[in-house]
Amino acid sequence: MLSFDFHNPTKIIFGKGRSSELGKLVPAGAKVLILYGGQSANRTGTLAEVQKALSGFEVHLFGGIEPNPSFDTLMKAVAVVKAENLDFLLAVGGGSVLDGTKFVAAAALCEDDPWQILLRHGANVKKALPYGTVLTLPATGSEMNSGGVVSRISHKAKLHFSNSLLFPQFSVLDPTKSFTLPEQQLANGVIDAFVHTMEQYLTYPVDSPLQDRFAEGLLLTLIDIGPKVLANPQDYEAQASFMWCATLALNGLIGAGVAQDWSTHMLGHEITALYGLDHAQTLAIILPSMLQQRKKSKQKKLLQYAERVWNITQGSDDENMDQAIEKTRQFFESLGVKTRFADYKLGAEIISPLIAQLENHHMTRLGEHNDVTPEVCRQVLEKSL
Amino acid sequence: MLSFDFHNPTKIIFGKGRSSELGKLVPAGAKVLILYGGQSANRTGTLAEVQKALSGFEVHLFGGIEPNPSFDTLMKAVAVVKAENLDFLLAVGGGSVLDGTKFVAAAALCEDDPWQILLRHGANVKKALPYGTVLTLPATGSEMNSGGVVSRISHKAKLHFSNSLLFPQFSVLDPTKSFTLPEQQLANGVIDAFVHTMEQYLTYPVDSPLQDRFAEGLLLTLIDIGPKVLANPQDYEAQASFMWCATLALNGLIGAGVAQDWSTHMLGHEITALYGLDHAQTLAIILPSMLQQRKKSKQKKLLQYAERVWNITQGSDDENMDQAIEKTRQFFESLGVKTRFADYKLGAEIISPLIAQLENHHMTRLGEHNDVTPEVCRQVLEKSL
Repeated sequence: MLSFDFHNPTKIIFGKGRSSELGKLVPAGAKVLILYGGQSANRTGTLAEVQKALSGFEVHLFGGIEPNPSFDTLMKAVAVVKAENLDFLLAVGGGSVLDGTKFVAAAALCEDDPWQILLRHGANVKKALPYGTVLTLPATGSEMNSGGVVSRISHKAKLHFSNSLLFPQFSVLDPTKSFTLPEQQLANGVIDAFVHTMEQYLTYPVDSPLQDRFAEGLLLTLIDIGPKVLANPQDYEAQASFMWCATLALNGLIGAGVAQDWSTHMLGHEITALYGLDHAQTLAIILPSMLQQRKKSKQKKLLQYAERVWNITQGSDDENMDQAIEKTRQFFESLGVKTRFADYKLGAEIISPLIAQLENHHMTRLGEHNDVTPEVCRQVLEKSL
Repeated sequence: MLSFDFHNPTKIIFGKGRSSELGKLVPAGAKVLILYGGQSANRTGTLAEVQKALSGFEVHLFGGIEPNPSFDTLMKAVAVVKAENLDFLLAVGGGSVLDGTKFVAAAALCEDDPWQILLRHGANVKKALPYGTVLTLPATGSEMNSGGVVSRISHKAKLHFSNSLLFPQFSVLDPTKSFTLPEQQLANGVIDAFVHTMEQYLTYPVDSPLQDRFAEGLLLTLIDIGPKVLANPQDYEAQASFMWCATLALNGLIGAGVAQDWSTHMLGHEITALYGLDHAQTLAIILPSMLQQRKKSKQKKLLQYAERVWNITQGSDDENMDQAIEKTRQFFESLGVKTRFADYKLGAEIISPLIAQLENHHMTRLGEHNDVTPEVCRQVLEKSL
């Protein structure tokens, strides 16, 4: 096992109806900015519910945070925080709203140009406003971690940032909040959590049997409950397990003491930035090709994954790895998410611009061995057409 | 899944040699009391290493915290804290030293009679001194939770307490610290972690597939690495996984959202208090009989345990449950820990005094269904002779 630090101070409040407890979770006397996305927060009644729970507080609203939250939108929220002298943020939404709020928390107290927070991936964050979250869409794990991703359209950039000052103080996880989500968002969420797990699991062995078992437990559970969530979004038990899986897939636990990859994510971010695909669509396209391309260096873990997650043991090593990758692709497709660029009407013309963007963003040595060069990414993209 | 709160703010510093970082972990200017157990902390050099890392601090020492730490000893440490006006505690040892330090942290700032902390199981703790730990023996999970157990010999009492104010600020987990432990302590530690997991897993189904997978992952890993740790205590990788298993078996994670039992522990505490057996010995004796006695109400989880942990699926339900219980007993015995009272030269004469002590301590409705009465405990004890 590798040496590690693990510290996750976020308080989780899990269960139906628990946003009614917000009045006790937000610090007494706080001046609160509630940040949310589109109209669904209004339509579902979640926003009204949250406002009611905070009836004793000075509360301001900031809506309109888009999927792949944009730097320009978030800087408008920063301006509201400063103008009104607010001291607590409450994110109500999915990963985009949560990531955006995390950025606002840092940018509101940033003495640098806030754009540097993204360019420096959070390394320059020295303080941040405290914030909590009410999660409505399980996927990114942002509700229990200190990282996020923000896009700047004018720069065609989608950049991640993280800093230990950026954990939520608390997150309310109410599985009924996902009952009304569109099928595509649910499918995207399952795939996001699945690929988060794979990025921390499918690397190379470092004698970490417990982390492996936990990661396999997440994958097996997601494979089991993903179809149930889609078939009946009002299945509380399936939604509850989905929500807890998504949180634990990226709260630092399964990544503690092991090698991590993240090349699929980094390449995926460039695809979203240039061509607008959903984050999970990019993961569903890239992961199978990435595993295929790097089969040799990932052989031991791929065989373990084949056996323990998909029960594939009968063929040669090569056949078993291929089968496991194919099962992964089929799982994504079974959730209704396509796994080829052609399905999104994109062809070979996208490859050179994507490689150029990776180079612009200094993403030239990705993966657990730092050997995923732009040339390797080019081959992955070719395999994904 | 049941609703739950989960909040664990302890920072984990994991890896070889990491106690050298203590000077950065302890708050600047703190006046520190280092609490430890017997001479092994001196003999192994750990105490000197810790003192060196804290060379810039005012440091006082308090040794002699015994296994099953005693109220009277700990109150002497409280007196030192008060006399010297100390403001930070550092536990260096195993679960007994850590539990004892946790009690001192609460008792030093307690305005009640500190004995009430135990009688009220921590409910009256309003503030506590901050403390950190350097773990030398994986077993209890005390390094990442807010509970402990303290004994008061004059009252023949061994009582648990917990309070959310009692998490360590940090814990240094260096697997090399277990290299020199006696075989019996290592075996005890494996069994303690195993039974902690079972208390939170082997109850009844509440649609918690992820928690189940995590618990099974802990059990499978302990079954795999337990013998390796005993065969070669200097096997860093085995010790590292053992240490991380013991921590995660009782840091709140696998118990979040599920039913919990703890009857084996409560009965075990009484056995230690009256007859002095090691904590893990009492668990190894009681757990198999407890599972046998309550086979019917635990049937679904016992069958799942049989299949997923021991790969037992061929017989009738009854046979499979019996086999899984027998496998559990054999696992404990294979680690050199006996599982019958007779092995410890105790007989039926112990039953009535133990039942009387359970009643004295109001432990009359134990277990996940509150149906483990003194009469049920009597039958469990009879099965354990």
